[in-house]
Amino acid sequence: MTVKYLALSGGVGGAKLAFGLTHAVPAEELGIVVNTGDDFEHLGLHVSPDLDTLLYTLAGINNPTTGWGRDAETWSFMGALEEVGGPTWFRLGDKDLALNVLRTHALQSGTTLSEFMANMANRLGITSRIIPMTDETVRTVIETELGPLDFQDYFVRHRCEPVVQSIQLQGTTDAAPTAELQEIMTADALSAIIICPSNPYLSIDPILSVPGIRDGLRKCGVPVIAVSPVVSGDSMKGPTSKIMRELGIPCSATAIGHHYRGLIDGLLIDNDDASLEAEIADLGIAVKPSDIVMRSTEDRCTVAKTAVQFAGELGRGRMPNAEQAT
Amino acid sequence: MTVKYLALSGGVGGAKLAFGLTHAVPAEELGIVVNTGDDFEHLGLHVSPDLDTLLYTLAGINNPTTGWGRDAETWSFMGALEEVGGPTWFRLGDKDLALNVLRTHALQSGTTLSEFMANMANRLGITSRIIPMTDETVRTVIETELGPLDFQDYFVRHRCEPVVQSIQLQGTTDAAPTAELQEIMTADALSAIIICPSNPYLSIDPILSVPGIRDGLRKCGVPVIAVSPVVSGDSMKGPTSKIMRELGIPCSATAIGHHYRGLIDGLLIDNDDASLEAEIADLGIAVKPSDIVMRSTEDRCTVAKTAVQFAGELGRGRMPNAEQAT
Repeated sequence: MTVKYLALSGGVGGAKLAFGLTHAVPAEELGIVVNTGDDFEHLGLHVSPDLDTLLYTLAGINNPTTGWGRDAETWSFMGALEEVGGPTWFRLGDKDLALNVLRTHALQSGTTLSEFMANMANRLGITSRIIPMTDETVRTVIETELGPLDFQDYFVRHRCEPVVQSIQLQGTTDAAPTAELQEIMTADALSAIIICPSNPYLSIDPILSVPGIRDGLRKCGVPVIAVSPVVSGDSMKGPTSKIMRELGIPCSATAIGHHYRGLIDGLLIDNDDASLEAEIADLGIAVKPSDIVMRSTEDRCTVAKTAVQFAGELGRGRMPNAEQAT
Repeated sequence: MTVKYLALSGGVGGAKLAFGLTHAVPAEELGIVVNTGDDFEHLGLHVSPDLDTLLYTLAGINNPTTGWGRDAETWSFMGALEEVGGPTWFRLGDKDLALNVLRTHALQSGTTLSEFMANMANRLGITSRIIPMTDETVRTVIETELGPLDFQDYFVRHRCEPVVQSIQLQGTTDAAPTAELQEIMTADALSAIIICPSNPYLSIDPILSVPGIRDGLRKCGVPVIAVSPVVSGDSMKGPTSKIMRELGIPCSATAIGHHYRGLIDGLLIDNDDASLEAEIADLGIAVKPSDIVMRSTEDRCTVAKTAVQFAGELGRGRMPNAEQAT
């Protein structure tokens, strides 16, 4: 299997585009690098929220309402945990537990996180590659008005309410891209890199913070495009706009362009933000306005197709003789 | 809290009498020493089948049909485990998982098994003490025609089908009774020791194999009685009679007397076995025939009362001046 399209994704928002990409390109040609900065130890279990969201979404067994967790989930475990005074702020569904228990056991037995996810994806009939950003422990810590908070503590227990001062990543010094990601980044097969509309600060930056990934992506020599997570001055989901405000960054597609400047060649923005085209272009970033809000399965496929086309156009633009050469 | 009555128990069968004992004596005066030779690591979780059966039974939240596991259990975890090809031979219910996950986490955090169980019992409003036989790792291994099998492998995966050649206990050398059990055995408060009608070979022998328990119980100087797990030449539940047959032991209340000879002062047998009274008495064991089959909650309380009375009679018999002295 040769990965030709590489996506970078956080959880729910990114998984929507990743799902679309599995229909826009041959699924087996898609690799998705997933944030593991949100991973944490809970009740002794290794929980990987973003990886599991990708896995469940691509397998078609995710909760279609929340976007995370399992379909037709049950909550008996949480009820029994509550009976004996166990912690209930982080809710683990009964089905979801299976993956968490298996992963914890696998990691304790010496299996790497990437091997485990590849195995699970295989079991669930997923032909795309779901690739943790690293097999090492990198953790996102949110510096807030209440002091530093572990990611899930901030995100779930405190429901993103504390004002964010900065975002730190622990463990990056010793981290490296997984072997598979290194192989993909140095192989000739790759034709495009697509940054999903995930939170740039909480989901994509952790991926880019792993030594070797940001540089590795640039060195691939293929178009890198991002799909803006901001439309009409607001994030489509999650706390992106709140965090941008708190960090003193204007919440606009232009700010997303600024954030990814030097990494991306193109930014897919919403038609509603078409007026920003010139100022984003001034950053040296190609811009394509389109309808990028993903409400339905069809939307996901359409946006994914547009993103792939956009990357293709940039690829041809970059290599003017490419068509004649082939 | 002072323990005056100490019971020795395995899982389902023993838990029935233990439940009765919580009604026959003040519940807070009852301690139950529970077999942990059946404990095992499964999917990285520390599973303690007998301890949990006691906990659920005394809390009134056990499955009344099977005798083990939780009431109104759900099985979503197992379903999800099966989807990804996980092992399904040992079935962990969703509610039951809560205790197993919490226990594993507690043990990994340095809590002892006895501390954890005391905490859980407290949370569930149980005033009797549920005491693991040891905090160390002792494991029952069944030597069979198929070779040595770990207990749950024999009991659950192989459904007790392989012919048993002998029963081994691993880890006893380094094991010791828990601090609480040592305290109870050396305190003056104890007035009776009751061996529940659990499997003598699979459930009670592991307890007695922990260095210090068998001797400690004898040295308490209080009556030790057993309730026979065999009635009319058959075990009331589980594989006791099959194992006795395979080990070349006649399945009778008399054989139970032989087995516990030197430890017990009295054996409570069924009225149906009254004809064995003389031959058991010949072993130097006092005998009391009664109705010992426990089908209903009422039966459990009645058998427990009879057992406590029997021990009381033996106590007075042993100390003829006891009544005058008080």
